[in-house]
Amino acid sequence: MTPLPAVDSPVIAELHAALPGRVTTDPSGLVALSTDKSGHRGEGVPLAAVHAQSVEDVQQVCQIASAHRTPVVTRGAGTGLSGGATAGAGEIVLSLERMDQVLEISEGNRLAVVQAGVINGRLDEHLAPHGLWWSPDPASKDISTVGGNIAMNAGGLLCAKYGVTRESVLALKVVLADGRLLEVGHRTVKGVTGYDLTALMIGSEGTLGIIVEATLALRPAVTGDTPTLGAVFPSIVDAAAAAAEVVRAGHVPAAMELLDRPCLDAIAAHTGKELAPGGQAYLLLQHDGAAALEEIASTAEILARHRAQLTHATDQADSERLFALRRLMFPSLQALGSLLIEDVAVPRDRLAEAFAEIRRIEEEFGLSIPTAAHAGDGNLHPTFTFTGEIVPPQIWEAAGRIFEMALAMGGTLTGEHGVGLLKRRWLADELGADQMDLQQQIKAVFDPAGILNPGKIFTP
Amino acid sequence: MTPLPAVDSPVIAELHAALPGRVTTDPSGLVALSTDKSGHRGEGVPLAAVHAQSVEDVQQVCQIASAHRTPVVTRGAGTGLSGGATAGAGEIVLSLERMDQVLEISEGNRLAVVQAGVINGRLDEHLAPHGLWWSPDPASKDISTVGGNIAMNAGGLLCAKYGVTRESVLALKVVLADGRLLEVGHRTVKGVTGYDLTALMIGSEGTLGIIVEATLALRPAVTGDTPTLGAVFPSIVDAAAAAAEVVRAGHVPAAMELLDRPCLDAIAAHTGKELAPGGQAYLLLQHDGAAALEEIASTAEILARHRAQLTHATDQADSERLFALRRLMFPSLQALGSLLIEDVAVPRDRLAEAFAEIRRIEEEFGLSIPTAAHAGDGNLHPTFTFTGEIVPPQIWEAAGRIFEMALAMGGTLTGEHGVGLLKRRWLADELGADQMDLQQQIKAVFDPAGILNPGKIFTP
Repeated sequence: MTPLPAVDSPVIAELHAALPGRVTTDPSGLVALSTDKSGHRGEGVPLAAVHAQSVEDVQQVCQIASAHRTPVVTRGAGTGLSGGATAGAGEIVLSLERMDQVLEISEGNRLAVVQAGVINGRLDEHLAPHGLWWSPDPASKDISTVGGNIAMNAGGLLCAKYGVTRESVLALKVVLADGRLLEVGHRTVKGVTGYDLTALMIGSEGTLGIIVEATLALRPAVTGDTPTLGAVFPSIVDAAAAAAEVVRAGHVPAAMELLDRPCLDAIAAHTGKELAPGGQAYLLLQHDGAAALEEIASTAEILARHRAQLTHATDQADSERLFALRRLMFPSLQALGSLLIEDVAVPRDRLAEAFAEIRRIEEEFGLSIPTAAHAGDGNLHPTFTFTGEIVPPQIWEAAGRIFEMALAMGGTLTGEHGVGLLKRRWLADELGADQMDLQQQIKAVFDPAGILNPGKIFTP
Repeated sequence: MTPLPAVDSPVIAELHAALPGRVTTDPSGLVALSTDKSGHRGEGVPLAAVHAQSVEDVQQVCQIASAHRTPVVTRGAGTGLSGGATAGAGEIVLSLERMDQVLEISEGNRLAVVQAGVINGRLDEHLAPHGLWWSPDPASKDISTVGGNIAMNAGGLLCAKYGVTRESVLALKVVLADGRLLEVGHRTVKGVTGYDLTALMIGSEGTLGIIVEATLALRPAVTGDTPTLGAVFPSIVDAAAAAAEVVRAGHVPAAMELLDRPCLDAIAAHTGKELAPGGQAYLLLQHDGAAALEEIASTAEILARHRAQLTHATDQADSERLFALRRLMFPSLQALGSLLIEDVAVPRDRLAEAFAEIRRIEEEFGLSIPTAAHAGDGNLHPTFTFTGEIVPPQIWEAAGRIFEMALAMGGTLTGEHGVGLLKRRWLADELGADQMDLQQQIKAVFDPAGILNPGKIFTP
């Protein structure tokens, strides 16, 4: 382990002087701020943590960090699953949690301007009285920040219909590594002046700049019925094939969530609720919009043809109860031990094949790999449980096999959780040497000294 | 004018040798390929034009061009309005029009893979039997290529509801300046491995790489009624205020097109059809989707409250006739002389203010500035007519005043046509010095020798 820095570090002294009352150097506080929901952490204890309260605070941190070439690891609520916000010895943790203001809601422009630290779910509470809604809907939405959602280009349950975070961001204010404030994007719906640096920042995991403020594209709130059904299947492959058929037939459910038997067992053990009695897989499907009732009748027919037993939610409360159980899947798995949550995506017509292959890998390695999927967009979360803090090599090997499968199918290592620390060793397999090189050159344009979240996305 | 290159140029010789039968050096053919629909052209006659038939052809051109540091100007159908595809002396014109194959249509993945040169409207003919649709809908869609749409991040009539081109592209194959083939993006719905180079390429106007193949995100074809109405207003400001109110009330029309009196006059002169007898402005509004009939009743009420006289289209053919007249606006204006078509966008709640300011600028300069707007997204096309090839300084001055207005409102120089040659001198006003610098550094990463469409976007 790298030794702790001397407490008389000039960086700490400068931070205290510039940001009085906003700097933490207490080791236990620092340890808590050095990890995310991946459970991983950097080596050693960070130098200091700064709880920024303004754009100027962030600029000050970057100026001091640049002058001393000290790394800065930005974090929101620390709910990431890829180790993107882990920090270690010699690094400044920059928390944006206190920058949590909704600065503007414009009905006429259907947009909101927010600070990076606002919690996604709390933003929706602000928007609801205006009949508006920000559609990015990661399962963590009640605890994750908008800035974190943007930095990771978060997905969620509604992406097949409503798109990922990138599609709901108009403009950003970004503090650059040297402390300059950059504004990218537009307050308008359209805008094509030069390269799309807004999209470049979205999903850049704190490595190109620090997103401090965002102008968000909103949608009119969904009104009317949101009919919901649960479908119990005799096998996960039947369920995946049914979901793929729903897509092929031209339907666009608001959500289509798939859980396999090990996920269902974990939820049952944790909550006492068995979602799929007598079945091997469960599909939770919801439609919204003016044709929702007709659409659910039509998708129900497709599911029934694939041997599903269907139960329609009786009312909104029943529907919410089913989605709440789905959102409890990761907490239910966490009750079993430490987790490595994977996040591959495959082309939608290969979902059944992907599940079959995961079952094969389970057998080969003698592991249980509970796997949920956002079935409308082909995004799977194969999850490994283990004891202790260190992922066993055998689990990495099995995870590596799943990555290879996804790439061989024309898919991706990470649909929505990001590369962070956990997937960087496979990144070149997906991107290829030429793209890796271009991406690293872009990193160098924005952060020539390499102080922004070093070691994330790219292996140092 | 720069002198013609010697015909024994080694570049021409190498092109002929590598690409037999695909190289044009005939001056009249070259002149035709040196402009776009902006009417602007480069100085002098290009060195040669290559009609690429394959990715390998494009790679060959780039290798030869790189070896000789010869500029390459890529073009699709040449329908751009900003001078992005103009070429001049010493430059190779690279036409992708012959790369016009639809390579794959996947219903199960709701995507298509196409070569860059396929015409947008022709692609939709291929997709229709599959019940699928590519939503980018520039007014030029029957004559413009998908590759050109992507290179410019084209907009169109449907963006407020269906997004711009960027939202409908999953992955790209791009030939780099040195001839390497780069694949960016994903065949999956989601994917967050590293920086979003797909979005960076979209709208890069041929300056970062040459888009040769695209994987396109499709939508289920729109079915059911598409009720359409025309609204005649006593003033353009009333019409713009009504359109803004439609947005504010939470409606999302498929299209909402606004024409002012000078546009209406031009269409009437060209086609013999007066869309708005007795009125000063015309709003053409269409809804689609399951609730279209209820929605049009509701938006009609809003328009009527803003002093509109409404006429509902009697059937699909009537509706198509109205949209065809709207699409004839630019041809109608072209009948009046040479055009400078501007493309500012403003926040949607400032549309009426923008029209009022354009009327003021008309008076100040003694000019008529026919202006149409995609009113659902605040994108205006103030258009200047003049005689001859050179835009008179007074018109540039008035256009500059409109750009200043858009920027002062928090808008943009170009909503959908791109920077090209025509807007580059104002680019720094919008982006600021820091962003200009970062954008040019990104250009240098992809094209260190500066051979890809030099002088476009950025002033040399």
